[in-house]
Amino acid sequence: MNLQSIFDIPELCYQYGVRQAIISPGSRNAALTVAFARHAGIRCLSVPDERSAAFVGLGMSLASKQPTVLICTSGSAGLNYAPAVAEAYFNQVPLLILTADRPPELIGKRDGQTIYQSALFGRHAKASFDYPSFDQNLQTQHACMIEALNSCIDGAPGPVHVNVPFAEPFYPESGKIYTASPDLIVKKPTNKSLPVKLPKALSTFRKILVVIGQQPKDDQLLQVLSLLSTDCHIPVIADVIGNCHGLKPLISHQDLILVNRDSNLAPDLLITCGLSVISKNLKLFLRDSPHSTHWHISTHDDAADTYDWSPLTIDSEPFDIFETMADQLTEESIPQKEYFTLWQSKEARAKMVLKEADRSTWTETSIYQEVLDQLPTAIDLHLANSMAVRYVNTLGISSTKDIQVYCNRGTSGIDGSNSTAVGACIASSRDTLLLTGDMAFLYDRNAFWHNHMPTNLKIIVFNNHGGGIFRMIEGPSAQPELKEFFETDQRSSARSTARDFGFAYFTARNMPELRETLASFMNFQDGRSILEIFTDAEENTTAYKQLFKKMKD
Amino acid sequence: MNLQSIFDIPELCYQYGVRQAIISPGSRNAALTVAFARHAGIRCLSVPDERSAAFVGLGMSLASKQPTVLICTSGSAGLNYAPAVAEAYFNQVPLLILTADRPPELIGKRDGQTIYQSALFGRHAKASFDYPSFDQNLQTQHACMIEALNSCIDGAPGPVHVNVPFAEPFYPESGKIYTASPDLIVKKPTNKSLPVKLPKALSTFRKILVVIGQQPKDDQLLQVLSLLSTDCHIPVIADVIGNCHGLKPLISHQDLILVNRDSNLAPDLLITCGLSVISKNLKLFLRDSPHSTHWHISTHDDAADTYDWSPLTIDSEPFDIFETMADQLTEESIPQKEYFTLWQSKEARAKMVLKEADRSTWTETSIYQEVLDQLPTAIDLHLANSMAVRYVNTLGISSTKDIQVYCNRGTSGIDGSNSTAVGACIASSRDTLLLTGDMAFLYDRNAFWHNHMPTNLKIIVFNNHGGGIFRMIEGPSAQPELKEFFETDQRSSARSTARDFGFAYFTARNMPELRETLASFMNFQDGRSILEIFTDAEENTTAYKQLFKKMKD
Repeated sequence: MNLQSIFDIPELCYQYGVRQAIISPGSRNAALTVAFARHAGIRCLSVPDERSAAFVGLGMSLASKQPTVLICTSGSAGLNYAPAVAEAYFNQVPLLILTADRPPELIGKRDGQTIYQSALFGRHAKASFDYPSFDQNLQTQHACMIEALNSCIDGAPGPVHVNVPFAEPFYPESGKIYTASPDLIVKKPTNKSLPVKLPKALSTFRKILVVIGQQPKDDQLLQVLSLLSTDCHIPVIADVIGNCHGLKPLISHQDLILVNRDSNLAPDLLITCGLSVISKNLKLFLRDSPHSTHWHISTHDDAADTYDWSPLTIDSEPFDIFETMADQLTEESIPQKEYFTLWQSKEARAKMVLKEADRSTWTETSIYQEVLDQLPTAIDLHLANSMAVRYVNTLGISSTKDIQVYCNRGTSGIDGSNSTAVGACIASSRDTLLLTGDMAFLYDRNAFWHNHMPTNLKIIVFNNHGGGIFRMIEGPSAQPELKEFFETDQRSSARSTARDFGFAYFTARNMPELRETLASFMNFQDGRSILEIFTDAEENTTAYKQLFKKMKD
Repeated sequence: MNLQSIFDIPELCYQYGVRQAIISPGSRNAALTVAFARHAGIRCLSVPDERSAAFVGLGMSLASKQPTVLICTSGSAGLNYAPAVAEAYFNQVPLLILTADRPPELIGKRDGQTIYQSALFGRHAKASFDYPSFDQNLQTQHACMIEALNSCIDGAPGPVHVNVPFAEPFYPESGKIYTASPDLIVKKPTNKSLPVKLPKALSTFRKILVVIGQQPKDDQLLQVLSLLSTDCHIPVIADVIGNCHGLKPLISHQDLILVNRDSNLAPDLLITCGLSVISKNLKLFLRDSPHSTHWHISTHDDAADTYDWSPLTIDSEPFDIFETMADQLTEESIPQKEYFTLWQSKEARAKMVLKEADRSTWTETSIYQEVLDQLPTAIDLHLANSMAVRYVNTLGISSTKDIQVYCNRGTSGIDGSNSTAVGACIASSRDTLLLTGDMAFLYDRNAFWHNHMPTNLKIIVFNNHGGGIFRMIEGPSAQPELKEFFETDQRSSARSTARDFGFAYFTARNMPELRETLASFMNFQDGRSILEIFTDAEENTTAYKQLFKKMKD
């Protein structure tokens, strides 16, 4: 079997910016494994549990903004990638997935590890390819990979699947040394430069509202948004996953603000960019408000009609549009100052409610406030679904710190939070803190089961022995099945996991203990560490609901 | 929202023989959760990690031979079911999968936990249904469930998916008590009784070979196979997963026998039943032999052309066909005794090689022999992929014990061996022993993360710190990447997992220790227990290969 084209794949990937691959062990994928492991420019990590492996790859892509390659063997291995692939699809994260397969003639014959792998990920892969058979010429095989790589990064990035069938023998023949073909140079598509086209009607709107969806931190964008807000009186709203905490003035407490729906807060022009929004109150408020104009700014033609306002896509970079807006809005045409002031006053009120909350109670609300106050000045902050990201979004992040927030909000699953944090920490090398609950943490404990664990990773596990969110929301808390079938009543702690995978382990069970431990934990520099905080689910619920109640009064 | 039809689902399932449901926590699936939890005839288990939950369900179905219901929330939860669904599809295990979904109008709008759930499992679901919207009448909704249940058990059983979209509010209104509709009686399709049709040509064949694929233990079948073998001189071959160890005379060492290919062993008529076969040497031998006639006996029209012999399906129960054969083969027409004797002599030779093997070495080969010798007289024996099932298949199981063997050979994945054993043990209540390696065990450690762990479960973990199989097969062992990227070099043990989930924990590091410990372990009755056996991968390889080498000489 001529494996030359397989040994060209890493080099093609390298030329597309790939610098990392996650390999899960297997035999059918041997040639891919060996080819990648021998490429000097690509760092290869071996992660055995494919579910974790794929989320580690997702984290690496998030942090590096380059595609990560995933490699696994045939059979159900690739199906374990599926949760991370869906997250990557909806969160627009580039992944190049190479699944080894048996040759087509063995499929459906009850051979071992043989399933239907072609287009395995269905609609959750941005594109799916069947690798050409090995008797095709090299150009055909290269063309397949180049098309896959293009598809991975062109337009909205996403997960792309290439299924590669190998017939036996699929190990390089003894003595045969493959290297990449010498003339292997590919021309990547260049990013098209777009003219900035702002709809002319801008000056006719009086209540313009900007809502930033999930996106990475972008300091240049923050500057122009600050201008837009301060000079043009346009309120800018962002959840923590919008990474706008550096922006002043920012509206970030929309979930609290909109417990009271003031129709004066409804915009006549809604401008959005980025991906998903956490705040349910904001979504419901906008969906229920009179629908006027909605522009979504994106070069990817990927506007989602989150609010049912039938958005018009503006095919441009958000920065360019906002800059043009700031230029065009002259004194006569800038929107109502009253609208801006109204949002500001609501934001101030929410901040006051938070400030006045009783910080002495041993509840997650107080503890999250304490943790957020003591965050280092610069850190990558990973938030697990579902309560961690909600708490932080409700309480807010300091505007003066350099904090990059990550959260798997593509599918909002709890299934890969640990792995994503591990992958991002490895790829970014930045100090990383994951805030998570006991359910998400234990679900993904295999995230640490490999030999590449970073030392600068900290995890705070909020252990209330179950899915605390189910006590927070009204429906399940009224059911007699609450404890067994919603919260789950799980009894494990993170201690064994910490011991198994070399984490220093801290705990806190009351506020004085926490204040003392938190400082040592945050300053701990001798390797990775876990702080596990034990609380009571019922008391957490009371305190968190109290915030919203107070806001409502 | 009228939830009546949801509260009818458990009763419909009950009437189809469903007695167990595995529920993973979530909010969108609240009505399904509550409906099943309140049905007096269905046992509901809460298992948080959906990947494990689905394999636990698979184990329950395997042991009970009835469909198990799986219930999960919307989003990536259902994708975690995918590995077990594929296993169920290829291994013909009935599962009824109910995934809660958001209403269709929210899909693709960046709402939380919203993915493309319709037909989520692609070709690995036997059938997929979209549950009718709640404004349809009850009959329409019942019809959907009845069709799904029929499809789950009619013909070859398999996994069937029903995606159920719920709009808010999806909790039962406060004070409203739903019970199943009073007139809910369904008529299950009755099994058609088939006339036994044996092709007339039977008496013209002189070398008839019966190969039994994976199937549950069937004492009636064993009786007729024994007759066929003893009186009609037809050799019967079965791997351990064929559950024919009670049969005398049985050919079970085909993997050893066929290291030397004797063309006289090739049949002129091959008769098969059951599902997959483990022995690679048998598969290769039959594929490479001159292709003559192949009959596959099954009422499911599901013959797989495992050997490329283009089988003719005989639409009947194997027992009926074999009984008819035994009747029809009169003295003049029975096949060559020489053919039968040849297989028997080869089998005897293999047994001799095993008997003469050095049992004193501290290698998995000797240890497995020791363990198999000391198996209790009656037990459910679960074998993990990939080395556990291979060792047991090579070494063989005593014909005098009542042992039911289970192994996930539908996809041959390592991903759910623990969970399958847990589920089967719960459903069968029989004493259960799982033989597994460190990779499969740790991969699926969340199998134990719930509150339903049986006490009569024993696990032996063969820990050689990596995927031992990669050292056994020729390709990877020749690569410099063997240790890091094939074997994986994983450093964990099962000790913490044992402690976390209440297993008594035993270890053995040499033969005298093992002999002592094994007796206490096998006799241990005070709850579930794990015996972890540490060996060296290199020495294991040498000893295992030695068996085949000896057989070849």
